[in-house]
Amino acid sequence: MITKRERTLIQQLRLKKNRFSARQFVVEGKKSILEFVDAGYAVSAIYATEPFDLPKAKQISASEMARISHFKNASSILAVFSIPEESRIPEQGRILVLDKITDPGNLGTLIRLADWYGIDHILCSLTTVDCYNPKVVQASMGSLSRVSCHYQDLTTYLAKDNRPSYGAFLKGVSIYSTEFPSNALLVLGNESNGISDEIKAHLGHSITIPRRSTSGPESLNVAIAGGIIMGELCR
Amino acid sequence: MITKRERTLIQQLRLKKNRFSARQFVVEGKKSILEFVDAGYAVSAIYATEPFDLPKAKQISASEMARISHFKNASSILAVFSIPEESRIPEQGRILVLDKITDPGNLGTLIRLADWYGIDHILCSLTTVDCYNPKVVQASMGSLSRVSCHYQDLTTYLAKDNRPSYGAFLKGVSIYSTEFPSNALLVLGNESNGISDEIKAHLGHSITIPRRSTSGPESLNVAIAGGIIMGELCR
Repeated sequence: MITKRERTLIQQLRLKKNRFSARQFVVEGKKSILEFVDAGYAVSAIYATEPFDLPKAKQISASEMARISHFKNASSILAVFSIPEESRIPEQGRILVLDKITDPGNLGTLIRLADWYGIDHILCSLTTVDCYNPKVVQASMGSLSRVSCHYQDLTTYLAKDNRPSYGAFLKGVSIYSTEFPSNALLVLGNESNGISDEIKAHLGHSITIPRRSTSGPESLNVAIAGGIIMGELCR
Repeated sequence: MITKRERTLIQQLRLKKNRFSARQFVVEGKKSILEFVDAGYAVSAIYATEPFDLPKAKQISASEMARISHFKNASSILAVFSIPEESRIPEQGRILVLDKITDPGNLGTLIRLADWYGIDHILCSLTTVDCYNPKVVQASMGSLSRVSCHYQDLTTYLAKDNRPSYGAFLKGVSIYSTEFPSNALLVLGNESNGISDEIKAHLGHSITIPRRSTSGPESLNVAIAGGIIMGELCR
């Protein structure tokens, strides 16, 4: 049994403004939920359509789950977690910087890639999709539990961070002939428009993934490009 | 105006068996259609909701377009092309080999990546999703017009191709310490199960994208992994 109040809260957490005011977000699927628990995220509530061995887990019916799930095909487990306090962006190491990534699937995939390559912090422009958006959480497949996403005004931030910065563009120095230092900012831009001129003015290096074909596609999807560049950055 | 017969044909082309018997497929969106025309694909019919400067283009209403489109949000132009005769797989060069890729978005993205890296031929297992599936055509964003997809029994094919073959696995030699030759087969496996044991037995090298984090995700999406490995293969 789930109370009407609980159901309303979960439904409200679909929206960013409600997640922001309640400081809570929803994770669906056993594997991802266990990763957030392992990473020390505070659980507010867990609902499962089958017995589930975690404190606070409440058994509910499949039709109740269908009503609270944020997806067409509900998983058998849904949990509400607290959004953690924002940590500081470390002054050393590699940071992924995102200038207006709007597609939740792309952000989720980039979080997963950062996790794969050991990049623990992502700095997002204020115009980037919220990392606690249900589709981002789903696409990150648990990696959001290990990667911190920070939302700040990029222009202000870039003006004070002294690390070498590398922006991904359609034209620039080949990533294969770039020696990336261990302290670096990798900047990726919007799906349609790339990195904005305002941000570009703050970047030290323009890099590109060289196209090998003469008549191939004009560009690559930002998550794919991010994966290829992170591979070089962290090799 | 579109005749009932034309409409029925287009609707039938959603299904692989009908595409196979009619030897035709559908492309939606102006940019992709022009790329197939440029690549020399034979056009059977073009329908547009606005005047479109190509021979055979027929103007139809938006509601007629909504009925024939294979997508929820119809584009303003739809064309029917002939499926070309299958060409031979060249004996030299780099070939991407796919063992049971089932997600249309993944195949479309891999076709786009192959096009980017100048890999002109993809050998697909008979269990791989059809490259003329509407979602594959859409995700390839015109690249299917420049990359040939061949469907064959992989075991039979691999037994007779003498090029060095590199299979992507979760464990293997790092792609960053592998010297790829200019004649090579790169083999990627199914989204959930990877490369099947039967195919693995035919491969010369097991390669992997090293994970840099100790507790990161177990694997990467096959299209992302394909992009990272093709980058190394073709650098």
